[in-house]
Amino acid sequence: MITISIDAMGGAYAPHAVIESIGLSIKRQPDLFFLIYGDPDKVLDLIAKHALPEERYKFYPVKGVISDEAKPLDAIRRAHDSSMRQAIEAVRDKIAHAAISCGSTGTLFVLSKVILGGLSGIKHPAIIGLVPNIAGQTVMLDMGGAIMCDENSFFQFALMGSCFAKILLKKDNPRIGILNIGTEQTKGRELEHKAYNLLSKSSLNFIGYAEGGDIFLDKVDVVVTDGFSGNIALKASEGAAKMFITMLRQASKNSLSAKIGMALMKRSLQDTLSKIEPSQTNGAMIIGIGGIVVKSHGNSEAPAIAHAISVAAKLARDNINDKISVEMKSLEEHGMTSIVDKIKQTSAKIFGSQKTNI
Amino acid sequence: MITISIDAMGGAYAPHAVIESIGLSIKRQPDLFFLIYGDPDKVLDLIAKHALPEERYKFYPVKGVISDEAKPLDAIRRAHDSSMRQAIEAVRDKIAHAAISCGSTGTLFVLSKVILGGLSGIKHPAIIGLVPNIAGQTVMLDMGGAIMCDENSFFQFALMGSCFAKILLKKDNPRIGILNIGTEQTKGRELEHKAYNLLSKSSLNFIGYAEGGDIFLDKVDVVVTDGFSGNIALKASEGAAKMFITMLRQASKNSLSAKIGMALMKRSLQDTLSKIEPSQTNGAMIIGIGGIVVKSHGNSEAPAIAHAISVAAKLARDNINDKISVEMKSLEEHGMTSIVDKIKQTSAKIFGSQKTNI
Repeated sequence: MITISIDAMGGAYAPHAVIESIGLSIKRQPDLFFLIYGDPDKVLDLIAKHALPEERYKFYPVKGVISDEAKPLDAIRRAHDSSMRQAIEAVRDKIAHAAISCGSTGTLFVLSKVILGGLSGIKHPAIIGLVPNIAGQTVMLDMGGAIMCDENSFFQFALMGSCFAKILLKKDNPRIGILNIGTEQTKGRELEHKAYNLLSKSSLNFIGYAEGGDIFLDKVDVVVTDGFSGNIALKASEGAAKMFITMLRQASKNSLSAKIGMALMKRSLQDTLSKIEPSQTNGAMIIGIGGIVVKSHGNSEAPAIAHAISVAAKLARDNINDKISVEMKSLEEHGMTSIVDKIKQTSAKIFGSQKTNI
Repeated sequence: MITISIDAMGGAYAPHAVIESIGLSIKRQPDLFFLIYGDPDKVLDLIAKHALPEERYKFYPVKGVISDEAKPLDAIRRAHDSSMRQAIEAVRDKIAHAAISCGSTGTLFVLSKVILGGLSGIKHPAIIGLVPNIAGQTVMLDMGGAIMCDENSFFQFALMGSCFAKILLKKDNPRIGILNIGTEQTKGRELEHKAYNLLSKSSLNFIGYAEGGDIFLDKVDVVVTDGFSGNIALKASEGAAKMFITMLRQASKNSLSAKIGMALMKRSLQDTLSKIEPSQTNGAMIIGIGGIVVKSHGNSEAPAIAHAISVAAKLARDNINDKISVEMKSLEEHGMTSIVDKIKQTSAKIFGSQKTNI
């Protein structure tokens, strides 16, 4: 059995969407057991309504909730008795394999680092997730956790991204690219050039630079970048997609023939677009820390949260953090000790004290 | 009359698309006169084919062409007798009001700075252009010219962007936002925080931070960012749009009813999507230098190049560079002399010697 600890109170549709998603997941995945943290006054009725079978969950009453609007550091000070904190602590206490929350990304990121600590040798924890592409999905990191990075962070992002892609995309040798403003070696900042040199020497399947558009065009499996650029790329593409859908809706109302046309196309369009819906992509991991924590989008409805649960379950079943540690070890054995040592020294200094403007 | 000097040899569809675009522009805009720079063996026949009226253009035979693939600095060394260089020199020599090229952005950017010099007081020239949004267009800069920026560059980008938006969007008081990973004041890098403080004190219509998605959602008229983030945002959104169009095409082939539906919707869809086509948005200015140079996308066909020509003509008619200088002056008069002085000192040191990794 895989045990998932879940913050029932975070997100725009909490707690009802969270409890509904647990119901969906219990039906789909017989090896899951849930620890549910939330306000009994709001959660117990929902558990009854969705008829969660008693042998598949345990409920922990928690009165405190971290507001989605609170600043991470304020939230953490006041978070001692909160559903988010307790869900993470269940992973620390080894009573859960993975934690999930739809609450604030910034707070979840900081709180997870504080409670679970860093994964040995990893300099910067990051937020890693799936983005739809024309043929399937692309793994991207960092999505907004590690704003200021250096080439060693990028190297470790590549390594962690490769492990994540092996598990979730089922690719043996994921193609890794560094996000840049062109594919020629002269393009970009010093950061990209240094990371390029480091990755070229590694045994990872490094294919060079990837441009913003390549994220969506199946040219690369893992896109590595800093949290600022990653977040900008993701949100810009989401904005473009929203504009597109709005225009499509407008176009379908312009004339009678357009209205009929849309009615005839609707089913096929919904099928095709379902590939890029949150119910197929939702669930970002906070990677590089001493446990599995998955962030579900704050606006997630039950099917999207259920996808995040399935992401957490896959990562737990495949023991992603052990895989990352093995890769770090194999680096040491393959003559890359200087990099690993350097990273370890720096991470010892930096971990826990770095500035996280999120 | 407005005189446009044009590099007939740059871009994927040169010279035929360029000459065709001149034909289109001559018909649409009676006040335009063209200086055409290109290889006579390739261009003269096209001029005859499109029957350009003799009183509306002058042809300058130039044998050299800057390859679209050449690295900027190599290209510049070898560029003495090239169509791109001569088109820019026409602006320097005051025989043209604005220059246009579909050639390599990097080369055009560097060559324009070298030939035309900086606009007084401007620290970093930038690439500025129009991006479609849900209700019209958004101005964005920098799009990939100035990779490493500081808060003074951002301040000047805002000022230049405001002038550009007044002319091209016809907005009296354009809303200016700094691209960031969230709208709260604590989000982002030190660069964004410092620029926020500077812009808050200015008389510009500064609305705070804009997220990646806001570019497309009519929340802001001018988006200010560094060339790395700007390029990533643009290309990521282009990639997302391409994915979307591919999915729409797939959906229209999935079933007979989808095929019929698409046929019925097609006209309306084309009308709606025409708003975001290059023929409505193409044309980016290299802003902050001593003359008007407009970059047309390398893959432009004639209607898109004609739009870039209309952008150049509008900027020339409205004397954008004079407007920027007036704004800089009014800054000095409104007690922002310390900023202006600081910028001037720094720009004197930096201009011409800054690293341009493009």
